[in-house]
Amino acid sequence: MRSVLSLAASALALTLVAAPALAQDAATIERAETVRDAAMERNIALDYVTQLTTRFGPRPAGSKSEQNAAAWAADYMRAQGFRNVRIEEFPLVGWERGEESASIVGARPQRLVVAALGHSPGTNGVIEAPVARFDSLEDLNAAPAGSLAGKIAYIDAGQMVRMQNGSGYGPLSRIRAAGPAAAAAKGAVAFIMRSAGSDEHRMPHTGTTRYVEGRVPVPAFALSAPDADQVSRLIGMDETVTLRLSSTAHTYETVSQNVIGEIVGRSRPEEVIVLGSHMDSWDLGTGAIDDGAGGAITLAAAKAIAESGRRPARTIRVVLYGSEEVAQPTDTGNGGGAYLRGVGAALEKHVIAGESDFGADRVYALGLPPGAQTSDFARAAAQVLYPIGVLPSPDPELHGGVDIGPLAGAGVPVFGLNQDGSRYFDLHHTADDTLDKIDPAQLNQNVAAWAGLVWLIADSDVDFRAMRPAEAAAH
Amino acid sequence: MRSVLSLAASALALTLVAAPALAQDAATIERAETVRDAAMERNIALDYVTQLTTRFGPRPAGSKSEQNAAAWAADYMRAQGFRNVRIEEFPLVGWERGEESASIVGARPQRLVVAALGHSPGTNGVIEAPVARFDSLEDLNAAPAGSLAGKIAYIDAGQMVRMQNGSGYGPLSRIRAAGPAAAAAKGAVAFIMRSAGSDEHRMPHTGTTRYVEGRVPVPAFALSAPDADQVSRLIGMDETVTLRLSSTAHTYETVSQNVIGEIVGRSRPEEVIVLGSHMDSWDLGTGAIDDGAGGAITLAAAKAIAESGRRPARTIRVVLYGSEEVAQPTDTGNGGGAYLRGVGAALEKHVIAGESDFGADRVYALGLPPGAQTSDFARAAAQVLYPIGVLPSPDPELHGGVDIGPLAGAGVPVFGLNQDGSRYFDLHHTADDTLDKIDPAQLNQNVAAWAGLVWLIADSDVDFRAMRPAEAAAH
Repeated sequence: MRSVLSLAASALALTLVAAPALAQDAATIERAETVRDAAMERNIALDYVTQLTTRFGPRPAGSKSEQNAAAWAADYMRAQGFRNVRIEEFPLVGWERGEESASIVGARPQRLVVAALGHSPGTNGVIEAPVARFDSLEDLNAAPAGSLAGKIAYIDAGQMVRMQNGSGYGPLSRIRAAGPAAAAAKGAVAFIMRSAGSDEHRMPHTGTTRYVEGRVPVPAFALSAPDADQVSRLIGMDETVTLRLSSTAHTYETVSQNVIGEIVGRSRPEEVIVLGSHMDSWDLGTGAIDDGAGGAITLAAAKAIAESGRRPARTIRVVLYGSEEVAQPTDTGNGGGAYLRGVGAALEKHVIAGESDFGADRVYALGLPPGAQTSDFARAAAQVLYPIGVLPSPDPELHGGVDIGPLAGAGVPVFGLNQDGSRYFDLHHTADDTLDKIDPAQLNQNVAAWAGLVWLIADSDVDFRAMRPAEAAAH
Repeated sequence: MRSVLSLAASALALTLVAAPALAQDAATIERAETVRDAAMERNIALDYVTQLTTRFGPRPAGSKSEQNAAAWAADYMRAQGFRNVRIEEFPLVGWERGEESASIVGARPQRLVVAALGHSPGTNGVIEAPVARFDSLEDLNAAPAGSLAGKIAYIDAGQMVRMQNGSGYGPLSRIRAAGPAAAAAKGAVAFIMRSAGSDEHRMPHTGTTRYVEGRVPVPAFALSAPDADQVSRLIGMDETVTLRLSSTAHTYETVSQNVIGEIVGRSRPEEVIVLGSHMDSWDLGTGAIDDGAGGAITLAAAKAIAESGRRPARTIRVVLYGSEEVAQPTDTGNGGGAYLRGVGAALEKHVIAGESDFGADRVYALGLPPGAQTSDFARAAAQVLYPIGVLPSPDPELHGGVDIGPLAGAGVPVFGLNQDGSRYFDLHHTADDTLDKIDPAQLNQNVAAWAGLVWLIADSDVDFRAMRPAEAAAH
């Protein structure tokens, strides 16, 4: 029987024999802290996102720009020492905005600032029709059948509620998804809505609406908040508001792609931790916070770990997914679905997956997989993350996000480093999503959090599948 | 010899005999305080600016929209009890933006967000040319003759310095005025500049550039700050940036107009105090802060005085000037010039003029005419304004602003109620100049300051011309 050793000495012994470390070992924690601090000090995130957004600008899913950016990112990964860098191509129905305009017509004409919703059809010429306004999707759904024939249905459900965790988005994105079909069902010729956003700028927020077999039933547009105010005020003044809408939006056949690269594990290379984010952006801005930043953060965290002087036991794979923005809830035609299909039997060796897709503001909470929250690993992670302002989230992380959703659905545990979304929906899906909106200090904190946490997982044998409660595992 | 009365009793006596009050009388001050407080509580400013900006939207100088708004404003004045309401028409060369676009072309094309500068000519098709970047107007002026042949000259002088008094605007508006001619002098085919603004949004700031005989030598555009960043960063990455510019901007013959109404003086109606602001706006926004607010503030102040239960001795005239935005420094073709020409011999009975043209944020300082700053009047004004956060400005008010500049040049004393301009140049001349940017509480404080101060002047015999130092009077 072995004598009892101190924890530090035990950890040292484990290191010396190169046996799998425990994430909660003092030595592993100490190395995670070192990686964390080095990443906070110096990392490639700002360089990557600066080059990506400046050289390529907007990167709509399936566009030439997204394709060019993917080729460049693969080269960037190689130059940074990533291995097994590859581009995984998949077919996509792309959507192009073309030209669009909207104005109030009549005796006192005014232009409005609008943006077609993703996958909206064009207007095939011009639509000119009076506006029927509703306060909610429920009110629109309650309108009598045929009552909107020849009209433009307008939902103004008010400004998004500003929340740190972004949960104000749900009610408004639901309107964006379901609004066009609801309008068409009542006979409307087009659908317009107040943008799903928390700002008060002339910045409409685009985003994909629900399509069935690639088809949205009527042209659909988001108005900027001041334009939504204006239309609602005019209607409140008992003016009949007639709009002229035009859009040359259309879909086209194309390809998109995932860009994949690895820091290959030292001793258990077949065990894979998948980090990443999406490469595509909406067409109005340059996709800095949505989501050049996420790729920058995860790439920079993996690179910081690689540079720590000790390659971790497990493989860290960074995936820059294609075409996240156009994904539908039940769709696997985007980058996340393509990645899952390419994984095959290696799926069971996927230790965990994480996605950074909520801007570049600081991480404030860590969500772990069900079962892991009261584990020794959770205590070790808390020790590494607390000094940089990250607390444990009380909610288990179940789905991760759009890109790793297919992995999560296939049984891979997921984690989340939750970012402060207080100002995210001021910028999200607008022309204002540009590099200057990234705060370099907060970007660094993100990289440090990812690097410290991922180190704990990568240079250990922590097994999140084994921690899973019976119900969750059976799911 | 009269016995010595208390100041209050003396003021009362003056009131009873209806002799001209002194602005510094206790009774006059007290009534000014009452008017101030009533105006703070309830006034028509928000109603006026809401209707103006909502019903008419943008009101470019000489446009049908400005004309419609003027007719409506005259009716509004009449309905509010103003007398001698009239519209004073004058000829104008208008400018229409038409359609415009800009993009980086080449292997990695990107759209840019730009706005043609006022009076810029159209591109007559498309201009496609490489960009030559300069840090300043001085650097552009120092370029060798002919060195910009076939190029687009670009001045990126950095973000405007944010100042409470707005003085960060000077250096950048100088570039806007002189840039196109400087570019043309070196052979450039077009001129672009970082917007004269303090924000970081995709919001280009338009504004008139210098024209001689109605002509700007080359097409000229402002880039939004993020777009200026983008172009400068690409050039910094040693990329050759080639732009494609197009604009259908053009000038046209039209008319503009001043809208004039009065609160007629009780006992000295020929003595006139001129308040006002401009009715026109730039075409991108709805001209809420520039300058629906100024008309709202001055109209509401005059109305608050009219409602005080005692009509003041002197006439208060509100002028809603036409076509301020397109005025040139030496030009009298705008509303201010037309007003001066219409005044004739009554000019000498113009007691003072004031203009509100710096948004709707709170007033923080009062600038009085030269000579008045150490007067009893100044002390009375300070007493009325200090409780609502307004201090005496150490600088004498010499010029007033664009609209009352012609009056000032003709010898009429001017005053200024200086507004906090800290966020004014975030919005100025952009699409974002909309009603929601007006803070109703600060708008009310403006009305209260104007009402209290103007009462002091209107119901007294204060004579600013008599206070003028010899040099200033001779000027």
